Amino acid sequence: MTVKPLNLTLYLVLDPDLCSQSVGIVETALAAVQAGAGIVQLRAPTWKKRRMTECARSLKSALTPFHVPLIIDDHADVMLAANADGLHVGQQDLTPADARQLIGSNRILGLSLGSLEDCRPDELALVDYVGIGPTFVTQSKPDAGAAIGLTALQSIAAKAQKPSVAIGGIHINNAAQVGAAGVNGIAVISAICGQPDPYAASVSLLKAFQSNRKQS
Amino acid sequence: MTVKPLNLTLYLVLDPDLCSQSVGIVETALAAVQAGAGIVQLRAPTWKKRRMTECARSLKSALTPFHVPLIIDDHADVMLAANADGLHVGQQDLTPADARQLIGSNRILGLSLGSLEDCRPDELALVDYVGIGPTFVTQSKPDAGAAIGLTALQSIAAKAQKPSVAIGGIHINNAAQVGAAGVNGIAVISAICGQPDPYAASVSLLKAFQSNRKQS
Repeated sequence: MTVKPLNLTLYLVLDPDLCSQSVGIVETALAAVQAGAGIVQLRAPTWKKRRMTECARSLKSALTPFHVPLIIDDHADVMLAANADGLHVGQQDLTPADARQLIGSNRILGLSLGSLEDCRPDELALVDYVGIGPTFVTQSKPDAGAAIGLTALQSIAAKAQKPSVAIGGIHINNAAQVGAAGVNGIAVISAICGQPDPYAASVSLLKAFQSNRKQS
Repeated sequence: MTVKPLNLTLYLVLDPDLCSQSVGIVETALAAVQAGAGIVQLRAPTWKKRRMTECARSLKSALTPFHVPLIIDDHADVMLAANADGLHVGQQDLTPADARQLIGSNRILGLSLGSLEDCRPDELALVDYVGIGPTFVTQSKPDAGAAIGLTALQSIAAKAQKPSVAIGGIHINNAAQVGAAGVNGIAVISAICGQPDPYAASVSLLKAFQSNRKQS
């Protein structure tokens, strides 16, 4: 079921409320995927689980023909109920150990890193990728910490030694800078969700990131 | 593992923030149990899952010697990670079908009912008990609907035909009224959590409910 190895180059984090203001949730995901996004996360921290599970099932059905994995933020129960492909956890969510135990060895597990101290080898050994940030100032995640900047991004990516995406405040005007920081991809919310043309936005983001990409 | 049949007479719903304002979380649970509470739920809707799981594990260890089941509100993943005894779901949470699938047949599953329309036979067949309410006006659950009152409580309990507790705004001055409504017990939050003496509060609640109990 799981799609490994991962294509992290453009990682779409879906904010369903934001998507609903433009072309819709599933439509946004499909537009991004058709433009080259290789992985999609559903992140709906204010939603109740019934609605989240229904949304995840719709996304899973839509993404399966493209062999693009669907990741669920935080909620392992929703991930299991919707038979999604993986789970993303932050530093205050289920521990990687608990998460891996719940989801099994074949599903994708991602972990947020915000500092060098977050790079704990025993936890990194359990995850398939890391999300590093917030790289820049972001409006999409009110409880995100202060922006870490490109230097810290590079240091954390180098220390973690895992497939990695930068996340937080990444948009068309700074995606090229991130490309030089040694991460495998960029994760975005508002640079795609809520945009009038998510397909065009995704194409531009990918192009910008790859234009300046450090070959690792 | 599961403790069935259930003793629902006094069902403590732990609000850990409220408990922390007086004697503490585990201490509140133990005081209530020693006074006769037969079931304990952890409900921490604003907490992140890591903290919730740690709290659930502490409670599980504390309650196991008393053979009192620990129920987790909403989060099946936390329940599984902490090896708790059951899950409680509301009408917007995981469906009873999804919840039962995730937690297995031996664990306890509870469902909130707020109206006669919520009494769906296919769902009721999957659950072990129902929580009916909000019976009275409550401050403990900001998103609870309007109070249903004792007449609706009695009608819903009669229609559901499941072990039942009344919940919402129940305290020492109205617990006796609820005793006459044909439910198996009362579920309380602030009538115990945050009280200076949770043991004495629990004893009083049990006595009041049982003083006027309708024999079913």
